[in-house]
Amino acid sequence: MHKIRTRITELFDIRYPVIQGGMIWCAGWELASAVSMAGGLGLIGSGSMTPDILRHHIRKTRKATNAPFGVNIPLIYQHAAGNIEVVLKEKIPVVFTSAGNPAQWTRQMKDAGIRVVHVVSTLRFAEKAATAGVDAIVAEGFEAGGHNGREETTTMVLVPWIRKHLSLPLIAAGGIASGETMLAALALGADGVQLGSRFAISAEASCHPDFKKAVILAGEGATRLAMKQLMPVRLLENSFSQRIASLEEAGAGTEALKNMLGKGRAKKGMFDGDLEEGELEIGQVAVQIDDIKPVAVIMKRITDEFLTALNRISNLKDHFQI
Amino acid sequence: MHKIRTRITELFDIRYPVIQGGMIWCAGWELASAVSMAGGLGLIGSGSMTPDILRHHIRKTRKATNAPFGVNIPLIYQHAAGNIEVVLKEKIPVVFTSAGNPAQWTRQMKDAGIRVVHVVSTLRFAEKAATAGVDAIVAEGFEAGGHNGREETTTMVLVPWIRKHLSLPLIAAGGIASGETMLAALALGADGVQLGSRFAISAEASCHPDFKKAVILAGEGATRLAMKQLMPVRLLENSFSQRIASLEEAGAGTEALKNMLGKGRAKKGMFDGDLEEGELEIGQVAVQIDDIKPVAVIMKRITDEFLTALNRISNLKDHFQI
Repeated sequence: MHKIRTRITELFDIRYPVIQGGMIWCAGWELASAVSMAGGLGLIGSGSMTPDILRHHIRKTRKATNAPFGVNIPLIYQHAAGNIEVVLKEKIPVVFTSAGNPAQWTRQMKDAGIRVVHVVSTLRFAEKAATAGVDAIVAEGFEAGGHNGREETTTMVLVPWIRKHLSLPLIAAGGIASGETMLAALALGADGVQLGSRFAISAEASCHPDFKKAVILAGEGATRLAMKQLMPVRLLENSFSQRIASLEEAGAGTEALKNMLGKGRAKKGMFDGDLEEGELEIGQVAVQIDDIKPVAVIMKRITDEFLTALNRISNLKDHFQI
Repeated sequence: MHKIRTRITELFDIRYPVIQGGMIWCAGWELASAVSMAGGLGLIGSGSMTPDILRHHIRKTRKATNAPFGVNIPLIYQHAAGNIEVVLKEKIPVVFTSAGNPAQWTRQMKDAGIRVVHVVSTLRFAEKAATAGVDAIVAEGFEAGGHNGREETTTMVLVPWIRKHLSLPLIAAGGIASGETMLAALALGADGVQLGSRFAISAEASCHPDFKKAVILAGEGATRLAMKQLMPVRLLENSFSQRIASLEEAGAGTEALKNMLGKGRAKKGMFDGDLEEGELEIGQVAVQIDDIKPVAVIMKRITDEFLTALNRISNLKDHFQI
């Protein structure tokens, strides 16, 4: 049994600095507990859950494993306040917040002993999160799936930029689905990585099998950052995303986009498996994902690749003659 | 004196696997010779030169240094054929081609003993270049300055994807301006890196001092991929780029965009220093660049950072217990 030690593994008491994204409609207790049991940090994605459903998933995770796990809470979600109440009552050790103002709830959660991490796409938001008192930052690049920043800064640019200005533990997200990309993220100055897409396409993820198969078939350029006027989100291209793109290209306003979007698009796509009319959130790494495996297999593959790449890179030192 | 050995340093007979982008209006003989003298591979950017001017820059470079250097030739440029004639006659050891079909001239240049490298933004184009017989590939991500791919694939995703499918020597470009990002690129599977923006903002680059200063002042999200309908290009935002963006948002067609673009925009911006009406090509790393230094200082800084980051990353092995 090996382990990789960084500030992030120390902070969360986990074996590998690998955090699973708390993706809506994908990350229920089956996925979160599998990732935590495999040595990473599993996150329940509460962005598609009512407080009652979240409580159910927390209790199922606790039954499945004694390993640490967390909950992801998008702060602009209608049930955010209710879900925060649940994580406080259930004494969840780690909460990742995203899409909203970290000043609102961070102090209350910290006072309850929760380690709080906030997801950002710019240094400006990272500094706000640091001021709010978070324990760590996720720097999420343009290539990531789901909701994303307007600045379109990629992981390669964002991570060293935030690293240079903030000393907080830093987690890189976006474009990471392998041991090589994990090593690259650590080279950029991250202390850990967060993988969404790779774990969404695993046996334990609760999204629809047809969605998983569509991601496996995805080719180069198959995802796009859509709805930049509303709230940018990276989607796998389909009929729905193409209609949205046509509207945007024709100069449509936000109202027309909101009408076309309607309600429940993400559930329709990722959970119900409507590949043409649903919203299919996935990262650019979709192109690299070509199988659906149990989380334990994925984790072993990534850590094996990481060690191989680390040995290869370390050998450069022998060629670096002073 | 140290060196870093990879397949790219062997291919070009250089000390560091650091190639300077052959940027139009920035990369004349002063820049190319400075990079080559500092142990990298300098490239003359012929995309803004007539054959006569290119010959002049080649001869000035040869007077300045005996070190290997190369020429970058955008294949769709009006003087491409004439410039290829010049590099053949002048027996240039290395030619980087971009923006065009590598099948057209690669064989002829290879037969003359030139090492030919082609710049791509997708695996599909990389495979075409491999078929054409190139010696190496540059994989250029979405974050790179200047002309760019329609698929918007970032360096973090593109480099391991191409590495997995092609065994040719591979150079990563886009988002690289430091030793940490260079190490990350090598972790992703690249054998070398190409830096455009960082060397454009150096003492020896021939672009206008006001353009260099504008890049130093650039903040987060200051660059955008513009003119996606014509030929995508990453620009520093200014009055001109904002007018182009407004046209695009209003659903304008390619004719309207071409009219607005007109002729000589890149020269106006980067060479003449018209910061409002010119085209200012630069990568997302603009946000990280905060000084104008001689190339020798920049190269020393990057290789020092690289060694520091390599030592830090190699130490992870001690924590990786089997």
